[in-house]
Amino acid sequence: MRPSPEEFADRLQRTRARMARSGLDGLVVVDPANLHYLTGYDAWSFYMPQLLFVPLAAEPLLIMREMDAGGAHRTADATPRERILGYPESLVHQRDVHPFDWAAEQLRAHGFGGRGRIGYEGEAHFLSVRSFLALQRGLPAWQLVDAHDLVNWVRLVKSPYELGLMRKAGMVASAAMQAGIDAVAAGARLNDIAAAIQLAQATGVEGAEGDYPAIVPMLPAGESADTPHMTFSARRLDASEAVSIELAGAHRRYHAPLARTLVLGRPSDRLARLASVTAEGLQLVIDGLQPGRTVAEVHSIWQAHISKEGIEKPSRLGYSIGIGYPPDWGERTVSIRGDEQTVIEPGMCLHVIAGMWMLGYGCELSESLAITESGAEVLTTAPRELIVKESA
Amino acid sequence: MRPSPEEFADRLQRTRARMARSGLDGLVVVDPANLHYLTGYDAWSFYMPQLLFVPLAAEPLLIMREMDAGGAHRTADATPRERILGYPESLVHQRDVHPFDWAAEQLRAHGFGGRGRIGYEGEAHFLSVRSFLALQRGLPAWQLVDAHDLVNWVRLVKSPYELGLMRKAGMVASAAMQAGIDAVAAGARLNDIAAAIQLAQATGVEGAEGDYPAIVPMLPAGESADTPHMTFSARRLDASEAVSIELAGAHRRYHAPLARTLVLGRPSDRLARLASVTAEGLQLVIDGLQPGRTVAEVHSIWQAHISKEGIEKPSRLGYSIGIGYPPDWGERTVSIRGDEQTVIEPGMCLHVIAGMWMLGYGCELSESLAITESGAEVLTTAPRELIVKESA
Repeated sequence: MRPSPEEFADRLQRTRARMARSGLDGLVVVDPANLHYLTGYDAWSFYMPQLLFVPLAAEPLLIMREMDAGGAHRTADATPRERILGYPESLVHQRDVHPFDWAAEQLRAHGFGGRGRIGYEGEAHFLSVRSFLALQRGLPAWQLVDAHDLVNWVRLVKSPYELGLMRKAGMVASAAMQAGIDAVAAGARLNDIAAAIQLAQATGVEGAEGDYPAIVPMLPAGESADTPHMTFSARRLDASEAVSIELAGAHRRYHAPLARTLVLGRPSDRLARLASVTAEGLQLVIDGLQPGRTVAEVHSIWQAHISKEGIEKPSRLGYSIGIGYPPDWGERTVSIRGDEQTVIEPGMCLHVIAGMWMLGYGCELSESLAITESGAEVLTTAPRELIVKESA
Repeated sequence: MRPSPEEFADRLQRTRARMARSGLDGLVVVDPANLHYLTGYDAWSFYMPQLLFVPLAAEPLLIMREMDAGGAHRTADATPRERILGYPESLVHQRDVHPFDWAAEQLRAHGFGGRGRIGYEGEAHFLSVRSFLALQRGLPAWQLVDAHDLVNWVRLVKSPYELGLMRKAGMVASAAMQAGIDAVAAGARLNDIAAAIQLAQATGVEGAEGDYPAIVPMLPAGESADTPHMTFSARRLDASEAVSIELAGAHRRYHAPLARTLVLGRPSDRLARLASVTAEGLQLVIDGLQPGRTVAEVHSIWQAHISKEGIEKPSRLGYSIGIGYPPDWGERTVSIRGDEQTVIEPGMCLHVIAGMWMLGYGCELSESLAITESGAEVLTTAPRELIVKESA
């Protein structure tokens, strides 16, 4: 049920190969998705400083808060226990000392303090400026360089084991979307719709238990459907309102996001037209996602379609997916847009999301996809259309 | 229902007073809880770079992704629409340009690029190293200094309006804990217990709807009860197992955390004794939390109690609470420990958590408290003891 030792070895080997190509002697990893990928470690401890140091030619070192280090071996099965170090509780939230001062000291004590070109994750959510400055100060021989999401890029092409988890995440997503569709009704509060979705997300389905998604269900409704990331409130749905549901199914940290728009009663003409153009465009993109093409080529299919219909979408059409931790289920590598030259390969997983946020109205339609030799495999099963429910 | 304009003005005024005392001419705020506190802004957009610039003597400027800026006025009611700027979508996830390059340009264009001592949030979760370096590069006249959670410290003492929200968060927490207690049974899967809790968390109670908590329910169980931050899996509870539940009730972004330990069937002697010592100690701390004392004095009451019983707890006994966003519901200011010299004041809110993570077993017992003139007001209602359930 866990990744095999060979799978972990392969992930580390591919990370090191990429490090070598980038001229890196070591890599400081803090992104919890990257920690999970390389070591198996999984806990909600990322709100405190923690890091995995990956040397090019020695065993990695995992450094975290003492309270978390004690039990880290329960999930970090690819890391020997003696390579997991815990910093003292007294370093938490202090003004004049920082856990990464301690980490720097340990890295020196383990022989990693010499001259070298060391990568860091410049855009990771959990590498604070203080952490970075502590490394600079404590490891003065290091030449710190931005590794630009190096491990994220290693994660881009999934193994068969990972694709199995993505399919299960897709099953959870389909069930959660159905729970949301069932809960939408005139007069329903948005927080109650979210509650129904979260129940389904954590429960999962037969053969695929749920895990917590990196983002809570988002339910842009009515006029604020032009505001994609507003979270739920106790506002009640009006009798003829549209609401979008954007959620993910998660299974063992792998995520399959999914978005649909529902309308209570007859949709307005402009919404019906937008939804229909969007659905056609999404189908064209799914058909177009063939290995060997660039992402930009596929994006141009979408662009041509909506331009012909006189519709604009300045934001990207999606992104790569896989392991996710709050606050983001995207891998932060491939973006589906006109300037993305990445070549599509089997094993990549993408969330293609046509989020059409127009002034005062909008619709969202998406699919989570796994690229196979023959094209895009759809991981979820929700009806791919504007979902019309009777207004009570 | 929303904070009054006067309340927002007071928050900003107190922030500026603190900035002036620290010799700051401006402050770069990225912590989503601080953004919410100062502007009302509330959306799951913090996974992308965004900032509020607070000048000492001019109107603040809110800069975020274009997609989010368009609807930000729906929640950021303390910020005039013309002071909300959106950076182009084309800057998202690029290797060579960064949204904060654009932000720096806007700050210069708005007249904020001159010489000055500007604070930044060095330990905030969402100020990436790239963001920081972009500010350094784009605003070379700025002397950037770590403001050490300046706005977090302003948030420490709550207004009557905020205390009302904290009480409602406490009501949600009590209901969510009861849902968890009801779901614990021999053979129950941890993810199903989490699902029941999440349903209750989002639903809330009569008069206090739920909001999403900053952290998912944590359920350390059995042997892994020594591992506080492990999240839920599909593991089933054994017939005679102990499980801790740590959760928060959230209401309009305010959080009341709560932890209890449950045991199925008769507890082991060591667990029963640990739980009883912990409950006595927590009561002593609650009684001791009187305005005018230092936090360290109150901590010494706890320390004396557990030392007498031969028990050690190296980690802190709690922290201040209020507004929370993932990944943390703590305010990251006051820590309840022996070196914390903050004087207790009415309006402070604390999560006192006796998390006793011993080798191979453990228990957690906590309360969310608001300090009043006469002492600590308990915000939740769960039985303050080791909860024994029949083993089916």
